[in-house]
Amino acid sequence: MSQASSIQRLLNEFERLPGIGPKSAQRIVYWLLNGDTEAARRLAGAIIDVKESVRFCSCCFNYAEGETCGICESAALGKRDKSIVCVVSEPRDITAIERTGEHAGTYHVLGGALSPLENIGPNDLKIRELIQRLQGDEVHEVLVATNSNVEGEATASYLALLIKPLGVRVTRLASGLPVGGDLEFADELTLGRAIESRYEL
Amino acid sequence: MSQASSIQRLLNEFERLPGIGPKSAQRIVYWLLNGDTEAARRLAGAIIDVKESVRFCSCCFNYAEGETCGICESAALGKRDKSIVCVVSEPRDITAIERTGEHAGTYHVLGGALSPLENIGPNDLKIRELIQRLQGDEVHEVLVATNSNVEGEATASYLALLIKPLGVRVTRLASGLPVGGDLEFADELTLGRAIESRYEL
Repeated sequence: MSQASSIQRLLNEFERLPGIGPKSAQRIVYWLLNGDTEAARRLAGAIIDVKESVRFCSCCFNYAEGETCGICESAALGKRDKSIVCVVSEPRDITAIERTGEHAGTYHVLGGALSPLENIGPNDLKIRELIQRLQGDEVHEVLVATNSNVEGEATASYLALLIKPLGVRVTRLASGLPVGGDLEFADELTLGRAIESRYEL
Repeated sequence: MSQASSIQRLLNEFERLPGIGPKSAQRIVYWLLNGDTEAARRLAGAIIDVKESVRFCSCCFNYAEGETCGICESAALGKRDKSIVCVVSEPRDITAIERTGEHAGTYHVLGGALSPLENIGPNDLKIRELIQRLQGDEVHEVLVATNSNVEGEATASYLALLIKPLGVRVTRLASGLPVGGDLEFADELTLGRAIESRYEL
């Protein structure tokens, strides 16, 4: 009652967003109320826009605005290496990998990872579409960049079983100490993996 | 380039909001992309709505959707005590005080606090309007609930000087230890004020 109803409604909508609690929502709503209408309109417009114009790339299932995403378009123009495909669970993983600048190839988004517990099987992921992309001899390597958890590892193993017979190299992201990380804070599994995968100096 | 441009634009818009960094913005944007269009539309609609329908209460300068805010409306209906007016800097302070359930009176929003450094003088605040509300003998007490910082204290002193001659009681929020707070973590100013304002048991 102390709050205008449209303010209360906006507070509720912001609180629904991930990582936004009541305090953050309030801060944002008062910021919008204090700010100029143009800024609020731009935010609202951008939200509508993203839902209207974004769909899945027909080739790699990344988010795209046209038929294919920017990365697949670059690849088609010969600006990216089509011989190595990085397989990820979600489009957001592409952003993380792109930030490293270490992958010059293309991507394939599975849309999740195998998880018997959540009833996610091979048919729920874009695995058939991945295998189709590997027909022909354009692709020489599939780098499986699923998460380093049970589901991600299971998905990686499953993909390796499927893809190796096609004569395509299957690689996996390395596990080990985070760069800049302290030994004493590493969990035993990570440290164990780092020892196992030790390399010659 | 790895990002569709409408996604990038929405990321930028969210990063502009207070307390939202690149990581939070990304989390929210991907949540919106994964979610249903209806949720996104509701959020966008609520943003537009709040800017279109919210203005200032003509009586107390709280946010309102009509001519007056919900609190002033309640007061007009005799549901709130019109004899005590709580003076705050910003509408958001009303929310904080309403949550305590300790103030049954009305409010007056100054729209800031006196600050020579920021060139905010009495004429930049709704002080004239407050004095106008005190004409007549409806109001018996003004509780000054500005922040407990230099600007807030200066504003409180200034208001006391203006209002006391009108025969209206002027009170101020108490300073002291936060409830549940430890002595050892209290800063010396707060603890000093708590000693100064000690009360008989």
